Amino acid sequence: MITSATNAKVKRLVALSQKAKVRREEDAFIVEGPRMFVEAPTDWIREVYVAESFLAKCDFRDKLEQTGYEVVSDDVFKKISDTNTPQGILSVLKRPHYELEELLTKEAPFLMLLEDIQDPGNLGTILRTGEGAGIHGVIMTTKTADLFNPKVIRSTMGSIYRMPYYVTEDLLSVIDVLKQKGVAVYAAHLKDSVGYDEPDYTLGTAFLIGNEGNGLKDETANAATQYIKIPMAGQVESLNAAIASAILMYQAANQRMHKDMGGK
Amino acid sequence: MITSATNAKVKRLVALSQKAKVRREEDAFIVEGPRMFVEAPTDWIREVYVAESFLAKCDFRDKLEQTGYEVVSDDVFKKISDTNTPQGILSVLKRPHYELEELLTKEAPFLMLLEDIQDPGNLGTILRTGEGAGIHGVIMTTKTADLFNPKVIRSTMGSIYRMPYYVTEDLLSVIDVLKQKGVAVYAAHLKDSVGYDEPDYTLGTAFLIGNEGNGLKDETANAATQYIKIPMAGQVESLNAAIASAILMYQAANQRMHKDMGGK
Repeated sequence: MITSATNAKVKRLVALSQKAKVRREEDAFIVEGPRMFVEAPTDWIREVYVAESFLAKCDFRDKLEQTGYEVVSDDVFKKISDTNTPQGILSVLKRPHYELEELLTKEAPFLMLLEDIQDPGNLGTILRTGEGAGIHGVIMTTKTADLFNPKVIRSTMGSIYRMPYYVTEDLLSVIDVLKQKGVAVYAAHLKDSVGYDEPDYTLGTAFLIGNEGNGLKDETANAATQYIKIPMAGQVESLNAAIASAILMYQAANQRMHKDMGGK
Repeated sequence: MITSATNAKVKRLVALSQKAKVRREEDAFIVEGPRMFVEAPTDWIREVYVAESFLAKCDFRDKLEQTGYEVVSDDVFKKISDTNTPQGILSVLKRPHYELEELLTKEAPFLMLLEDIQDPGNLGTILRTGEGAGIHGVIMTTKTADLFNPKVIRSTMGSIYRMPYYVTEDLLSVIDVLKQKGVAVYAAHLKDSVGYDEPDYTLGTAFLIGNEGNGLKDETANAATQYIKIPMAGQVESLNAAIASAILMYQAANQRMHKDMGGK
Protein backbone atom coordinates (compact mmCIF):
# COMPACT_ATOMS: atom_id res chain seq x y z
CA MET A 1 0.00 0.00 0.00
CA ILE A 2 1.22 3.48 -0.87
CA THR A 3 1.08 5.67 2.26
CA SER A 4 3.52 8.46 1.41
CA ALA A 5 2.54 11.50 -0.63
CA THR A 6 6.18 11.88 -1.68
CA ASN A 7 6.18 8.46 -3.35
CA ALA A 8 7.39 8.75 -6.98
CA LYS A 9 4.20 7.12 -8.31
CA VAL A 10 2.10 9.69 -6.48
CA LYS A 11 4.07 12.54 -8.00
CA ARG A 12 3.68 11.05 -11.47
CA LEU A 13 -0.09 10.64 -11.04
CA VAL A 14 -0.43 14.29 -9.99
CA ALA A 15 1.61 15.32 -13.05
CA LEU A 16 -0.58 13.15 -15.31
CA SER A 17 -3.63 14.86 -13.90
CA GLN A 18 -2.30 18.41 -14.14
CA LYS A 19 -0.09 18.46 -17.24
CA ALA A 20 -1.18 17.94 -20.84
CA LYS A 21 2.47 17.46 -21.81
CA VAL A 22 2.92 14.53 -19.41
CA ARG A 23 -0.34 12.96 -20.66
CA ARG A 24 0.87 13.33 -24.23
CA GLU A 25 4.29 11.82 -23.47
CA GLU A 26 2.74 8.81 -21.73
CA ASP A 27 -0.13 8.63 -24.28
CA ALA A 28 -2.36 8.22 -21.23
CA PHE A 29 -5.06 9.93 -19.21
CA ILE A 30 -6.73 9.62 -15.83
CA VAL A 31 -10.37 8.87 -15.05
CA GLU A 32 -11.88 9.05 -11.57
CA GLY A 33 -14.79 7.35 -9.90
CA PRO A 34 -16.40 3.90 -9.91
CA ARG A 35 -18.60 4.52 -12.92
CA MET A 36 -15.72 5.63 -15.15
CA PHE A 37 -13.78 2.52 -14.07
CA VAL A 38 -16.66 0.13 -14.69
CA GLU A 39 -17.47 1.66 -18.10
CA ALA A 40 -13.83 1.80 -19.25
CA PRO A 41 -12.94 -0.62 -22.06
CA THR A 42 -10.83 -3.23 -20.27
CA ASP A 43 -8.02 -3.10 -22.82
CA TRP A 44 -7.58 0.66 -22.22
CA ILE A 45 -6.85 0.16 -18.50
CA ARG A 46 -3.17 0.38 -17.54
CA GLU A 47 -3.22 1.02 -13.81
CA VAL A 48 -5.87 1.28 -11.10
CA TYR A 49 -5.49 2.98 -7.70
CA VAL A 50 -8.01 2.36 -4.94
CA ALA A 51 -8.32 4.19 -1.61
CA GLU A 52 -8.14 1.90 1.42
CA SER A 53 -11.61 2.77 2.73
CA PHE A 54 -13.15 2.46 -0.74
CA LEU A 55 -11.84 -1.07 -1.26
CA ALA A 56 -13.77 -2.34 1.77
CA LYS A 57 -17.15 -1.41 0.25
CA CYS A 58 -16.35 -1.89 -3.44
CA ASP A 59 -18.94 -3.99 -5.32
CA PHE A 60 -17.05 -4.67 -8.55
CA ARG A 61 -14.17 -6.75 -7.22
CA ASP A 62 -14.33 -9.02 -10.27
CA LYS A 63 -13.24 -6.31 -12.68
CA LEU A 64 -10.64 -5.08 -10.19
CA GLU A 65 -9.14 -8.55 -9.90
CA GLN A 66 -9.08 -8.78 -13.67
CA THR A 67 -7.30 -5.44 -14.22
CA GLY A 68 -5.13 -5.55 -11.11
CA TYR A 69 -4.97 -2.60 -8.71
CA GLU A 70 -2.86 -0.90 -6.07
CA VAL A 71 -4.18 0.23 -2.69
CA VAL A 72 -3.30 3.72 -1.41
CA SER A 73 -4.06 5.32 1.94
CA ASP A 74 -7.07 7.68 2.03
CA ASP A 75 -4.74 10.65 2.61
CA VAL A 76 -2.63 9.81 -0.43
CA PHE A 77 -5.78 9.31 -2.48
CA LYS A 78 -6.90 12.85 -1.65
CA LYS A 79 -3.55 14.04 -2.94
CA ILE A 80 -3.79 12.24 -6.31
CA SER A 81 -7.47 13.04 -6.86
CA ASP A 82 -8.36 16.08 -8.97
CA THR A 83 -11.72 16.58 -7.19
CA ASN A 84 -12.74 18.08 -3.85
CA THR A 85 -14.76 14.97 -2.98
CA PRO A 86 -12.60 12.03 -4.12
CA GLN A 87 -14.55 8.93 -5.07
CA GLY A 88 -11.91 6.40 -4.00
CA ILE A 89 -10.90 4.92 -7.36
CA LEU A 90 -8.71 6.36 -10.08
CA SER A 91 -7.55 4.68 -13.27
CA VAL A 92 -4.76 5.42 -15.73
CA LEU A 93 -5.96 4.59 -19.24
CA LYS A 94 -4.23 4.53 -22.60
CA ARG A 95 -5.60 7.10 -25.00
CA PRO A 96 -7.69 6.09 -27.99
CA HIS A 97 -6.56 7.32 -31.43
CA TYR A 98 -8.61 7.77 -34.57
CA GLU A 99 -7.80 8.70 -38.16
CA LEU A 100 -9.87 11.39 -39.90
CA GLU A 101 -11.22 8.68 -42.24
CA GLU A 102 -12.70 6.80 -39.27
CA LEU A 103 -14.96 9.79 -38.56
CA LEU A 104 -16.23 9.69 -42.16
CA THR A 105 -17.35 6.09 -42.59
CA LYS A 106 -21.10 6.72 -42.21
CA GLU A 107 -23.23 7.57 -45.24
CA ALA A 108 -24.11 11.14 -44.24
CA PRO A 109 -21.40 12.20 -41.79
CA PHE A 110 -22.49 14.31 -38.83
CA LEU A 111 -19.58 16.12 -37.19
CA MET A 112 -18.59 19.00 -34.92
CA LEU A 113 -15.61 21.21 -35.84
CA LEU A 114 -14.23 23.09 -32.84
CA GLU A 115 -11.87 26.02 -33.30
CA ASP A 116 -9.86 26.87 -30.16
CA ILE A 117 -12.60 26.10 -27.59
CA GLN A 118 -10.95 27.00 -24.27
CA ASP A 119 -13.32 25.97 -21.49
CA PRO A 120 -12.89 22.30 -20.46
CA GLY A 121 -16.54 22.13 -19.34
CA ASN A 122 -17.71 23.31 -22.75
CA LEU A 123 -15.56 20.75 -24.57
CA GLY A 124 -16.66 17.84 -22.39
CA THR A 125 -20.30 18.89 -22.61
CA ILE A 126 -20.10 19.05 -26.42
CA LEU A 127 -18.91 15.41 -26.46
CA ARG A 128 -21.69 14.32 -24.07
CA THR A 129 -24.44 16.20 -25.92
CA GLY A 130 -22.95 15.12 -29.24
CA GLU A 131 -23.19 11.45 -28.34
CA GLY A 132 -26.83 12.03 -27.35
CA ALA A 133 -27.51 13.77 -30.68
CA GLY A 134 -25.84 10.96 -32.59
CA ILE A 135 -22.82 12.76 -34.06
CA HIS A 136 -20.07 10.63 -35.57
CA GLY A 137 -17.08 12.52 -34.23
CA VAL A 138 -15.51 15.75 -33.00
CA ILE A 139 -12.72 17.50 -34.91
CA MET A 140 -10.77 20.13 -33.00
CA THR A 141 -7.80 22.45 -33.48
CA THR A 142 -4.55 21.90 -31.55
CA LYS A 143 -5.34 25.13 -29.65
CA THR A 144 -8.57 23.65 -28.28
CA ALA A 145 -8.47 22.66 -24.59
CA ASP A 146 -6.81 19.27 -24.06
CA LEU A 147 -9.46 16.59 -24.50
CA PHE A 148 -7.79 14.50 -21.77
CA ASN A 149 -7.82 17.22 -19.11
CA PRO A 150 -9.60 15.74 -16.05
CA LYS A 151 -12.25 18.50 -16.16
CA VAL A 152 -13.06 17.65 -19.78
CA ILE A 153 -13.17 13.94 -18.99
CA ARG A 154 -15.61 14.54 -16.09
CA SER A 155 -17.92 16.67 -18.25
CA THR A 156 -18.07 13.98 -20.94
CA MET A 157 -19.83 11.65 -18.45
CA GLY A 158 -18.29 8.64 -20.22
CA SER A 159 -18.70 9.84 -23.82
CA ILE A 160 -14.89 9.98 -24.04
CA TYR A 161 -15.03 6.16 -24.31
CA ARG A 162 -17.27 6.24 -27.36
CA MET A 163 -16.72 9.46 -29.32
CA PRO A 164 -14.20 9.39 -32.17
CA TYR A 165 -12.09 12.55 -32.29
CA TYR A 166 -9.43 14.10 -34.47
CA VAL A 167 -7.04 16.94 -33.60
CA THR A 168 -5.65 19.07 -36.41
CA GLU A 169 -3.22 21.95 -36.80
CA ASP A 170 -4.82 22.81 -40.11
CA LEU A 171 -8.58 23.14 -39.82
CA LEU A 172 -8.87 24.69 -43.29
CA SER A 173 -7.45 21.56 -44.94
CA VAL A 174 -9.85 19.38 -42.97
CA ILE A 175 -12.75 21.58 -44.10
CA ASP A 176 -11.57 21.07 -47.70
CA VAL A 177 -11.54 17.30 -47.25
CA LEU A 178 -15.04 17.38 -45.78
CA LYS A 179 -16.39 19.52 -48.61
CA GLN A 180 -14.81 17.21 -51.20
CA LYS A 181 -16.65 14.33 -49.56
CA GLY A 182 -19.95 16.19 -49.88
CA VAL A 183 -20.20 17.25 -46.25
CA ALA A 184 -21.71 20.74 -45.89
CA VAL A 185 -19.87 22.88 -43.36
CA TYR A 186 -22.10 25.32 -41.44
CA ALA A 187 -20.77 28.31 -39.52
CA ALA A 188 -22.87 30.11 -36.94
CA HIS A 189 -22.51 33.70 -38.06
CA LEU A 190 -24.53 36.89 -38.08
CA LYS A 191 -23.99 38.07 -41.65
CA ASP A 192 -25.67 36.77 -44.84
CA SER A 193 -27.00 33.83 -42.91
CA VAL A 194 -30.13 31.67 -43.07
CA GLY A 195 -32.08 30.49 -40.02
CA TYR A 196 -30.38 27.51 -38.35
CA ASP A 197 -33.52 25.41 -38.91
CA GLU A 198 -33.57 25.91 -42.71
CA PRO A 199 -30.78 23.68 -44.14
CA ASP A 200 -31.24 19.96 -44.74
CA TYR A 201 -29.04 18.35 -42.10
CA THR A 202 -29.97 14.81 -43.12
CA LEU A 203 -27.18 15.16 -45.70
CA GLY A 204 -23.50 15.23 -44.63
CA THR A 205 -23.29 17.96 -41.97
CA ALA A 206 -20.51 19.59 -39.96
CA PHE A 207 -21.01 22.52 -37.56
CA LEU A 208 -18.17 24.97 -36.99
CA ILE A 209 -17.99 26.40 -33.45
CA GLY A 210 -15.54 29.17 -32.62
CA ASN A 211 -13.58 30.23 -29.57
CA GLU A 212 -15.68 31.49 -26.62
CA GLY A 213 -14.22 35.00 -26.60
CA ASN A 214 -13.45 35.69 -30.25
CA GLY A 215 -15.80 33.50 -32.27
CA LEU A 216 -14.61 31.93 -35.53
CA LYS A 217 -11.58 33.33 -37.33
CA ASP A 218 -12.56 35.11 -40.53
CA GLU A 219 -10.68 32.68 -42.76
CA THR A 220 -12.39 29.74 -41.09
CA ALA A 221 -15.87 31.26 -41.41
CA ASN A 222 -15.07 32.09 -45.06
CA ALA A 223 -14.36 28.42 -45.75
CA ALA A 224 -17.86 27.38 -44.63
CA THR A 225 -20.43 26.13 -47.14
CA GLN A 226 -23.13 28.28 -45.55
CA TYR A 227 -23.65 30.71 -42.69
CA ILE A 228 -26.48 29.93 -40.31
CA LYS A 229 -27.97 32.04 -37.55
CA ILE A 230 -29.46 31.17 -34.17
CA PRO A 231 -31.91 34.03 -33.52
CA MET A 232 -31.50 35.79 -30.17
CA ALA A 233 -34.16 37.85 -28.43
CA GLY A 234 -33.49 40.55 -25.83
CA GLN A 235 -29.99 41.96 -25.62
CA VAL A 236 -28.15 38.65 -25.88
CA GLU A 237 -25.16 38.97 -28.22
CA SER A 238 -24.05 35.36 -28.26
CA LEU A 239 -24.75 31.99 -26.70
CA ASN A 240 -22.33 29.85 -24.73
CA ALA A 241 -20.36 27.59 -27.11
CA ALA A 242 -21.73 24.32 -25.65
CA ILE A 243 -25.27 25.73 -25.74
CA ALA A 244 -25.03 26.84 -29.39
CA SER A 245 -23.55 23.41 -30.23
CA ALA A 246 -26.44 21.66 -28.49
CA ILE A 247 -29.12 23.68 -30.31
CA LEU A 248 -27.52 22.97 -33.70
CA MET A 249 -26.79 19.28 -33.04
CA TYR A 250 -30.34 18.60 -31.81
CA GLN A 251 -31.85 20.47 -34.76
CA ALA A 252 -29.94 18.11 -37.03
CA ALA A 253 -30.68 15.06 -34.83
CA ASN A 254 -34.38 15.84 -35.03
CA GLN A 255 -34.35 16.04 -38.82
CA ARG A 256 -32.38 12.81 -39.05
CA MET A 257 -34.71 11.01 -36.64
CA HIS A 258 -37.86 12.06 -38.49
CA LYS A 259 -36.30 11.04 -41.81
CA ASP A 260 -35.52 7.60 -40.38
CA MET A 261 -39.16 7.32 -39.32
CA GLY A 262 -40.28 8.10 -42.88
CA GLY A 263 -40.50 11.86 -42.70
CA LYS A 264 -42.76 14.17 -40.75
CA MET B 1 -8.25 55.48 -1.32
CA ILE B 2 -8.60 52.14 0.49
CA THR B 3 -5.16 50.54 0.78
CA SER B 4 -5.63 48.08 3.63
CA ALA B 5 -7.08 44.62 3.15
CA THR B 6 -8.23 44.67 6.80
CA ASN B 7 -10.42 47.71 6.17
CA ALA B 8 -14.00 46.99 7.37
CA LYS B 9 -15.44 47.81 3.93
CA VAL B 10 -13.10 45.28 2.30
CA LYS B 11 -14.22 42.57 4.72
CA ARG B 12 -17.86 43.37 4.02
CA LEU B 13 -17.33 43.21 0.24
CA VAL B 14 -15.68 39.79 0.54
CA ALA B 15 -18.61 38.60 2.68
CA LEU B 16 -21.09 39.96 0.11
CA SER B 17 -19.28 38.05 -2.58
CA GLN B 18 -18.99 34.77 -0.67
CA LYS B 19 -22.13 34.54 1.47
CA ALA B 20 -25.72 34.25 0.24
CA LYS B 21 -26.91 35.15 3.76
CA VAL B 22 -25.06 38.49 3.72
CA ARG B 23 -26.39 39.26 0.24
CA ARG B 24 -29.93 38.51 1.44
CA GLU B 25 -29.56 40.65 4.56
CA GLU B 26 -28.29 43.61 2.55
CA ASP B 27 -30.69 42.88 -0.35
CA ALA B 28 -27.67 43.44 -2.58
CA PHE B 29 -25.28 41.67 -4.91
CA ILE B 30 -21.91 42.28 -6.57
CA VAL B 31 -21.12 42.54 -10.27
CA GLU B 32 -17.59 42.72 -11.67
CA GLY B 33 -16.11 44.18 -14.81
CA PRO B 34 -16.62 47.27 -16.98
CA ARG B 35 -19.40 45.79 -19.09
CA MET B 36 -21.51 44.79 -16.10
CA PHE B 37 -21.06 48.32 -14.69
CA VAL B 38 -21.93 50.07 -17.94
CA GLU B 39 -25.01 47.87 -18.54
CA ALA B 40 -26.27 48.12 -14.94
CA PRO B 41 -29.49 50.14 -14.51
CA THR B 42 -28.25 53.33 -12.84
CA ASP B 43 -30.88 53.22 -10.10
CA TRP B 44 -29.68 49.74 -9.02
CA ILE B 45 -26.13 50.98 -8.33
CA ARG B 46 -25.33 51.55 -4.64
CA GLU B 47 -21.53 51.57 -4.53
CA VAL B 48 -18.70 51.35 -7.05
CA TYR B 49 -15.09 50.35 -6.33
CA VAL B 50 -12.37 51.00 -8.87
CA ALA B 51 -8.76 49.74 -8.82
CA GLU B 52 -6.18 52.53 -8.96
CA SER B 53 -4.58 51.34 -12.22
CA PHE B 54 -7.98 50.81 -13.86
CA LEU B 55 -9.16 54.35 -13.17
CA ALA B 56 -6.29 55.79 -15.24
CA LYS B 57 -7.47 54.06 -18.44
CA CYS B 58 -11.23 54.02 -17.79
CA ASP B 59 -13.31 55.32 -20.72
CA PHE B 60 -16.69 55.73 -19.03
CA ARG B 61 -15.85 58.46 -16.53
CA ASP B 62 -19.25 60.11 -17.10
CA LYS B 63 -21.22 57.23 -15.63
CA LEU B 64 -18.67 56.90 -12.82
CA GLU B 65 -19.02 60.57 -11.91
CA GLN B 66 -22.79 60.13 -11.96
CA THR B 67 -22.85 57.10 -9.66
CA GLY B 68 -19.91 58.10 -7.48
CA TYR B 69 -17.05 55.67 -6.78
CA GLU B 70 -14.27 54.83 -4.40
CA VAL B 71 -10.68 54.08 -5.43
CA VAL B 72 -8.88 51.08 -3.95
CA SER B 73 -5.26 49.97 -4.37
CA ASP B 74 -4.66 47.20 -6.92
CA ASP B 75 -3.69 44.80 -4.12
CA VAL B 76 -6.91 45.44 -2.25
CA PHE B 77 -8.88 45.06 -5.47
CA LYS B 78 -7.40 41.57 -5.94
CA LYS B 79 -8.66 40.75 -2.46
CA ILE B 80 -12.25 41.87 -3.07
CA SER B 81 -12.49 40.40 -6.57
CA ASP B 82 -14.01 36.93 -6.96
CA THR B 83 -12.02 36.20 -10.14
CA ASN B 84 -8.44 35.16 -10.86
CA THR B 85 -8.03 37.98 -13.36
CA PRO B 86 -9.72 40.99 -11.74
CA GLN B 87 -11.08 43.52 -14.23
CA GLY B 88 -10.58 46.59 -12.02
CA ILE B 89 -14.17 47.62 -11.33
CA LEU B 90 -16.72 46.10 -8.97
CA SER B 91 -20.20 47.40 -8.15
CA VAL B 92 -22.61 46.70 -5.33
CA LEU B 93 -26.15 46.71 -6.70
CA LYS B 94 -29.53 46.48 -5.05
CA ARG B 95 -31.42 43.33 -6.01
CA PRO B 96 -34.44 43.47 -8.27
CA HIS B 97 -37.67 41.87 -7.00
CA TYR B 98 -40.61 40.55 -8.99
CA GLU B 99 -44.01 39.17 -8.08
CA LEU B 100 -45.17 35.92 -9.70
CA GLU B 101 -47.87 37.93 -11.53
CA GLU B 102 -45.19 40.02 -13.26
CA LEU B 103 -43.91 36.87 -14.97
CA LEU B 104 -47.40 36.15 -16.29
CA THR B 105 -48.39 39.39 -18.01
CA LYS B 106 -47.77 38.24 -21.60
CA GLU B 107 -50.50 36.54 -23.59
CA ALA B 108 -48.88 33.10 -23.84
CA PRO B 109 -46.41 32.94 -20.95
CA PHE B 110 -43.10 31.21 -21.64
CA LEU B 111 -41.31 30.21 -18.43
CA MET B 112 -38.64 27.96 -16.94
CA LEU B 113 -39.32 26.13 -13.65
CA LEU B 114 -36.11 25.04 -11.93
CA GLU B 115 -36.16 22.51 -9.11
CA ASP B 116 -33.02 22.56 -6.94
CA ILE B 117 -30.50 23.29 -9.73
CA GLN B 118 -27.13 23.25 -7.92
CA ASP B 119 -24.49 24.34 -10.39
CA PRO B 120 -24.08 28.15 -10.56
CA GLY B 121 -22.85 27.91 -14.16
CA ASN B 122 -25.97 25.98 -15.18
CA LEU B 123 -28.28 28.50 -13.51
CA GLY B 124 -26.58 31.54 -15.06
CA THR B 125 -26.45 29.88 -18.48
CA ILE B 126 -30.18 29.11 -18.30
CA LEU B 127 -30.88 32.82 -17.76
CA ARG B 128 -28.60 33.84 -20.64
CA THR B 129 -29.99 31.26 -23.06
CA GLY B 130 -33.51 31.99 -21.82
CA GLU B 131 -33.21 35.66 -22.68
CA GLY B 132 -31.97 34.66 -26.13
CA ALA B 133 -34.93 32.30 -26.57
CA GLY B 134 -37.37 34.97 -25.43
CA ILE B 135 -38.64 33.46 -22.16
CA HIS B 136 -40.60 35.73 -19.83
CA GLY B 137 -39.11 34.61 -16.54
CA VAL B 138 -37.43 31.94 -14.44
CA ILE B 139 -39.13 30.38 -11.42
CA MET B 140 -36.91 28.46 -9.02
CA THR B 141 -37.11 26.62 -5.71
CA THR B 142 -35.45 28.01 -2.57
CA LYS B 143 -33.00 25.07 -2.77
CA THR B 144 -31.77 26.21 -6.18
CA ALA B 145 -28.29 27.82 -6.21
CA ASP B 146 -28.41 31.48 -5.13
CA LEU B 147 -29.17 33.57 -8.20
CA PHE B 148 -26.91 36.34 -6.88
CA ASN B 149 -23.83 34.14 -6.41
CA PRO B 150 -20.97 35.82 -8.37
CA LYS B 151 -20.50 32.68 -10.51
CA VAL B 152 -24.18 32.75 -11.50
CA ILE B 153 -24.02 36.48 -12.24
CA ARG B 154 -20.97 35.99 -14.47
CA SER B 155 -22.63 33.17 -16.44
CA THR B 156 -25.73 35.30 -17.09
CA MET B 157 -23.58 37.71 -19.15
CA GLY B 158 -25.90 40.58 -18.21
CA SER B 159 -29.22 38.73 -18.45
CA ILE B 160 -29.58 39.18 -14.67
CA TYR B 161 -30.48 42.82 -15.46
CA ARG B 162 -33.37 41.86 -17.68
CA MET B 163 -34.78 38.49 -16.65
CA PRO B 164 -37.72 38.49 -14.19
CA TYR B 165 -37.41 35.73 -11.60
CA TYR B 166 -39.40 34.30 -8.74
CA VAL B 167 -38.17 32.08 -5.90
CA THR B 168 -40.65 29.75 -4.20
CA GLU B 169 -40.65 27.29 -1.31
CA ASP B 170 -43.71 25.62 -2.80
CA LEU B 171 -43.20 24.74 -6.44
CA LEU B 172 -46.36 22.59 -6.52
CA SER B 173 -48.55 25.58 -5.67
CA VAL B 174 -46.87 27.64 -8.38
CA ILE B 175 -47.49 24.83 -10.89
CA ASP B 176 -51.18 24.91 -9.84
CA VAL B 177 -51.36 28.66 -10.45
CA LEU B 178 -49.75 28.27 -13.87
CA LYS B 179 -52.12 25.48 -14.89
CA GLN B 180 -55.13 27.52 -13.75
CA LYS B 181 -53.92 30.32 -16.03
CA GLY B 182 -53.78 27.91 -18.96
CA VAL B 183 -50.01 27.46 -18.98
CA ALA B 184 -49.03 23.89 -19.88
CA VAL B 185 -46.26 22.53 -17.67
CA TYR B 186 -43.87 20.13 -19.42
CA ALA B 187 -41.54 17.78 -17.59
CA ALA B 188 -38.60 16.13 -19.31
CA HIS B 189 -39.13 12.51 -18.36
CA LEU B 190 -38.55 9.08 -19.81
CA LYS B 191 -41.90 7.39 -19.14
CA ASP B 192 -45.19 7.84 -21.06
CA SER B 193 -43.70 10.81 -22.85
CA VAL B 194 -44.07 12.37 -26.30
CA GLY B 195 -41.18 13.71 -28.38
CA TYR B 196 -40.11 17.17 -27.18
CA ASP B 197 -40.87 18.60 -30.64
CA GLU B 198 -44.52 17.45 -30.67
CA PRO B 199 -46.42 19.83 -28.31
CA ASP B 200 -47.60 23.28 -29.40
CA TYR B 201 -45.37 25.65 -27.45
CA THR B 202 -46.93 28.77 -28.99
CA LEU B 203 -49.53 28.45 -26.21
CA GLY B 204 -48.61 29.16 -22.57
CA THR B 205 -45.55 26.99 -21.86
CA ALA B 206 -43.43 26.21 -18.81
CA PHE B 207 -40.55 23.69 -18.78
CA LEU B 208 -39.71 21.87 -15.55
CA ILE B 209 -35.99 21.13 -15.08
CA GLY B 210 -34.82 18.97 -12.18
CA ASN B 211 -31.72 18.78 -10.01
CA GLU B 212 -28.51 17.72 -11.83
CA GLY B 213 -27.98 14.56 -9.79
CA ASN B 214 -31.49 13.39 -8.98
CA GLY B 215 -33.75 14.78 -11.69
CA LEU B 216 -37.27 15.95 -10.84
CA LYS B 217 -38.93 14.79 -7.64
CA ASP B 218 -41.76 12.34 -8.35
CA GLU B 219 -44.44 14.63 -6.94
CA THR B 220 -43.19 17.48 -9.11
CA ALA B 221 -43.13 15.38 -12.27
CA ASN B 222 -46.61 14.09 -11.40
CA ALA B 223 -47.92 17.66 -11.34
CA ALA B 224 -46.85 18.28 -14.96
CA THR B 225 -49.43 18.65 -17.73
CA GLN B 226 -47.38 16.39 -20.00
CA TYR B 227 -44.14 14.43 -20.06
CA ILE B 228 -41.79 15.13 -22.95
CA LYS B 229 -38.68 13.30 -24.03
CA ILE B 230 -35.43 14.47 -25.59
CA PRO B 231 -34.21 11.41 -27.50
CA MET B 232 -30.64 10.33 -26.75
CA ALA B 233 -28.46 8.19 -28.99
CA GLY B 234 -25.49 6.12 -27.83
CA GLN B 235 -25.21 5.35 -24.14
CA VAL B 236 -26.08 8.83 -22.89
CA GLU B 237 -28.47 8.62 -19.94
CA SER B 238 -29.13 12.30 -19.45
CA LEU B 239 -28.13 15.72 -20.70
CA ASN B 240 -26.64 18.54 -18.64
CA ALA B 241 -29.45 20.66 -17.12
CA ALA B 242 -28.49 23.84 -19.01
CA ILE B 243 -28.20 21.88 -22.27
CA ALA B 244 -31.62 20.23 -21.88
CA SER B 245 -33.08 23.64 -21.03
CA ALA B 246 -31.53 25.18 -24.16
CA ILE B 247 -32.86 22.46 -26.46
CA LEU B 248 -36.39 22.83 -25.06
CA MET B 249 -36.38 26.65 -24.96
CA TYR B 250 -35.14 26.94 -28.55
CA GLN B 251 -37.66 24.37 -29.77
CA ALA B 252 -40.38 26.61 -28.31
CA ALA B 253 -38.69 29.81 -29.53
CA ASN B 254 -38.58 28.42 -33.04
CA GLN B 255 -42.30 27.59 -33.03
CA ARG B 256 -43.15 31.02 -31.65
CA MET B 257 -40.98 32.81 -34.21
CA HIS B 258 -42.47 30.95 -37.15
CA LYS B 259 -45.97 31.64 -35.83
CA ASP B 260 -45.19 35.37 -35.61
CA MET B 261 -44.02 35.24 -39.21
CA GLY B 262 -47.36 33.71 -40.26
CA GLY B 263 -46.56 30.05 -39.87
CA LYS B 264 -44.18 27.78 -41.68
